[in-house]
Amino acid sequence: LVFCIVLSVTVTLLDSVKELNLLYEKEFFYLDWFFTIVFTIEYLLRIYVVNRSLGYIFSAYGLIDFLAIFPTYLSFFIPSTRYFSVIRVLRVLRIFRILKLAHYLEEGELILKALKSSRRRIQVFVFSVFLLVIIIGSLIYVIEGEKNGFTSIPISIYWAIVTLTTVGYGDISPVTPLGQALSAFIMIIGYGIIAIPTGIVTAEMITSNKNISTQVCKNCSSEGHDEDAEYCKFCGARL
Amino acid sequence: LVFCIVLSVTVTLLDSVKELNLLYEKEFFYLDWFFTIVFTIEYLLRIYVVNRSLGYIFSAYGLIDFLAIFPTYLSFFIPSTRYFSVIRVLRVLRIFRILKLAHYLEEGELILKALKSSRRRIQVFVFSVFLLVIIIGSLIYVIEGEKNGFTSIPISIYWAIVTLTTVGYGDISPVTPLGQALSAFIMIIGYGIIAIPTGIVTAEMITSNKNISTQVCKNCSSEGHDEDAEYCKFCGARL
Amino acid sequence: LVFCIVLSVTVTLLDSVKELNLLYEKEFFYLDWFFTIVFTIEYLLRIYVVNRSLGYIFSAYGLIDFLAIFPTYLSFFIPSTRYFSVIRVLRVLRIFRILKLAHYLEEGELILKALKSSRRRIQVFVFSVFLLVIIIGSLIYVIEGEKNGFTSIPISIYWAIVTLTTVGYGDISPVTPLGQALSAFIMIIGYGIIAIPTGIVTAEMITSNKNISTQVCKNCSSEGHDEDAEYCKFCGARL
Amino acid sequence: LVFCIVLSVTVTLLDSVKELNLLYEKEFFYLDWFFTIVFTIEYLLRIYVVNRSLGYIFSAYGLIDFLAIFPTYLSFFIPSTRYFSVIRVLRVLRIFRILKLAHYLEEGELILKALKSSRRRIQVFVFSVFLLVIIIGSLIYVIEGEKNGFTSIPISIYWAIVTLTTVGYGDISPVTPLGQALSAFIMIIGYGIIAIPTGIVTAEMITSNKNISTQVCKNCSSEGHDEDAEYCKFCGARL
Repeated sequence: LVFCIVLSVTVTLLDSVKELNLLYEKEFFYLDWFFTIVFTIEYLLRIYVVNRSLGYIFSAYGLIDFLAIFPTYLSFFIPSTRYFSVIRVLRVLRIFRILKLAHYLEEGELILKALKSSRRRIQVFVFSVFLLVIIIGSLIYVIEGEKNGFTSIPISIYWAIVTLTTVGYGDISPVTPLGQALSAFIMIIGYGIIAIPTGIVTAEMITSNKNISTQVCKNCSSEGHDEDAEYCKFCGARL
Repeated sequence: LVFCIVLSVTVTLLDSVKELNLLYEKEFFYLDWFFTIVFTIEYLLRIYVVNRSLGYIFSAYGLIDFLAIFPTYLSFFIPSTRYFSVIRVLRVLRIFRILKLAHYLEEGELILKALKSSRRRIQVFVFSVFLLVIIIGSLIYVIEGEKNGFTSIPISIYWAIVTLTTVGYGDISPVTPLGQALSAFIMIIGYGIIAIPTGIVTAEMITSNKNISTQVCKNCSSEGHDEDAEYCKFCGARL
Repeated sequence: LVFCIVLSVTVTLLDSVKELNLLYEKEFFYLDWFFTIVFTIEYLLRIYVVNRSLGYIFSAYGLIDFLAIFPTYLSFFIPSTRYFSVIRVLRVLRIFRILKLAHYLEEGELILKALKSSRRRIQVFVFSVFLLVIIIGSLIYVIEGEKNGFTSIPISIYWAIVTLTTVGYGDISPVTPLGQALSAFIMIIGYGIIAIPTGIVTAEMITSNKNISTQVCKNCSSEGHDEDAEYCKFCGARL
Repeated sequence: LVFCIVLSVTVTLLDSVKELNLLYEKEFFYLDWFFTIVFTIEYLLRIYVVNRSLGYIFSAYGLIDFLAIFPTYLSFFIPSTRYFSVIRVLRVLRIFRILKLAHYLEEGELILKALKSSRRRIQVFVFSVFLLVIIIGSLIYVIEGEKNGFTSIPISIYWAIVTLTTVGYGDISPVTPLGQALSAFIMIIGYGIIAIPTGIVTAEMITSNKNISTQVCKNCSSEGHDEDAEYCKFCGARL
């Protein structure tokens, strides 16, 4: 089934390349229907098997499974000549089938746990970055002005995000000396504050990495034994 | 009130987009006065409520609150036809209203504390980066010369910052082999030394993450004992 | 021999520069044959010296050593006038000689060990990034469309990778407001989640940095005891 | 004196801006001579004061101090009309005066210590990056070819460094699908392996951050006391 998902996504990817679309239009069409039928059978089986089928249908996985088959059926009922752009979007939506792979991704728990327990700090960090980006975006809008590509504050904020995150497309870049000075400032800020989320997540991971048992030795009352320890490391008594 | 701040900032953002400005000029004007009046009432109430009202007025929050209402009133007294560019700047200044949200951001303390206690090291790091950037900027100015876009040393330093922080706009980029070699060198440096601020902040956060017991010694009133301590490490009394 | 490898790679590098190629074609030709003969002698000696010579030939190092001499011999038998592009590729293949230096790189073990023991988590991370990039690439393909450079989903995924990793070439960049909003979102995600691999590797390195005692229990021969352990944690015998 | 250094460097920076150079040529000239004389006096005083004056002259600081005054004197003896480009380079060399500030930068020791003790690992890392970059540069040279801007292997290696370090100028970028796939691969590699130097430096800093005293309690033989501890935290005896 994993193989089926990967292949179906690959077909959707290649389908969007114009040259391949023209060459293999028929093959792609049949393959798509084949995958849709396979996933439909899987979907119906899951509904049948699971006890609380209503609970499954409206769960995250259920919605993903539904989204994986829905577009192809819908495209069947829409006259393709009139709503061409809708069809195009539907075609791309099939890519969400890849989320079905998330079924098989349960090992990410540890990472998610570290992210969750530092969620509060990360929120504060992201919020501060937003404040900073809005202020800097407005300043550069005033400094550089509309003639240098900073046509509105939202665009300037977009530029500030591009710069702060060190992406740096270069589609908009400051021209005046003052604007360049400000952007040099924001670059160094962005280069430095990446340390903050890294620090937060690393500190959390190190803490959660330590598998220290909460066992207490009955003989000498010492703590801090390893999880796999069977005897107290200080007095040799059985734990 | 939070809702009010966010909405008012959104209005300022959208106001700067030319097309929207022409379409909804009136609505934006009335909304702006509405928010200004709301914030004015809040400002006056705060002055009235707080005991040391003079202290509040000149505190950081007081100045932000004042800045949030000042531009609109000022624009009232300035003939808009003559000082158009001043009006434009004032309009943008209203964005500082977002700093009023900082009232509600008190959870950032932990991050700030970690940054503060490693302030000294970060200063040294930023200072070293400045030295490096000035030296590299001057070298590239000599190597590439004015014909390749490096028209002055300040511009070359701007380029060095863009490169070292891995932003890489591409508005100025080296053309000569020697210049490209130097820039490859600075890129690898920049890629590597990001480890330094990250290391500093992470080390600080891990240290502050450790649960230091809140026990106070009854004998000498000292704090900061380890969790497993049984005797005060300063006076030897039992905890 | 290290000197020989570095020099031979340098020759291959310079050989690809057109101007130098025309000037020193003869010298490069003779130098290449000289290095090839040196490496051939080294290769034959290794086969002769090593006991299990077949094992050597098909080991990673053996294949690298073979690859280092093979292209030059092959170019001897191919009529250069007809298969010019093959020759060009062969010439470049000689660069793999640099892998011979890996013989001398045995200190990387510690880094590799840290990477290996966190391999599972890194796989999950890379896999999640792939899911994210495919979803975002498809969304931007729908939002921006083919007229703005996002001509197919694979190209859009390429753009998503360029943006998420904060490389930001700028050869393709979003033009519509919605596309810019989505790309701002992915930038902040990319800026933040770099904390995850960093956290994983750092946590692993710190753990492996800790001095685990090299003591072996005389009773049950188990290892991995803490430095402060006095009794074996598996069988309770005194260490 | 610090003020003098900063001002003199600022003058050199501004001197390189064409417009300012034409306007204030005289002022810059006099200021430069003034600073040169101040630094000359400082240099001579240092030679006079220091006992081992020869040791000072050839030390790093001595050479920097000499370099700070040398260019201006040299420009005095060279006929400016004939060797104009030499003069220009000399002018820029005055920027090295900023290194005199390094006199005042002694707090960087801690950072340098952490870098030094992990020097071995960092060398291995940088060397592996070089191997990777040379291999990838050669591959992209073969894949993309000279018509897409990858005119020689050194240029391709330059591109590989630009991409791996996530700088991404965009002056050269892959056009063929295979080239884009390879560059997506190297981006993800580069995005991931930044974790390695970060991990190395962070682990080192955390280790050096811990000020754990090596004191042993004479009464109960326990270890792990804080540096500022005066009494054993386990038995209360004086350390």
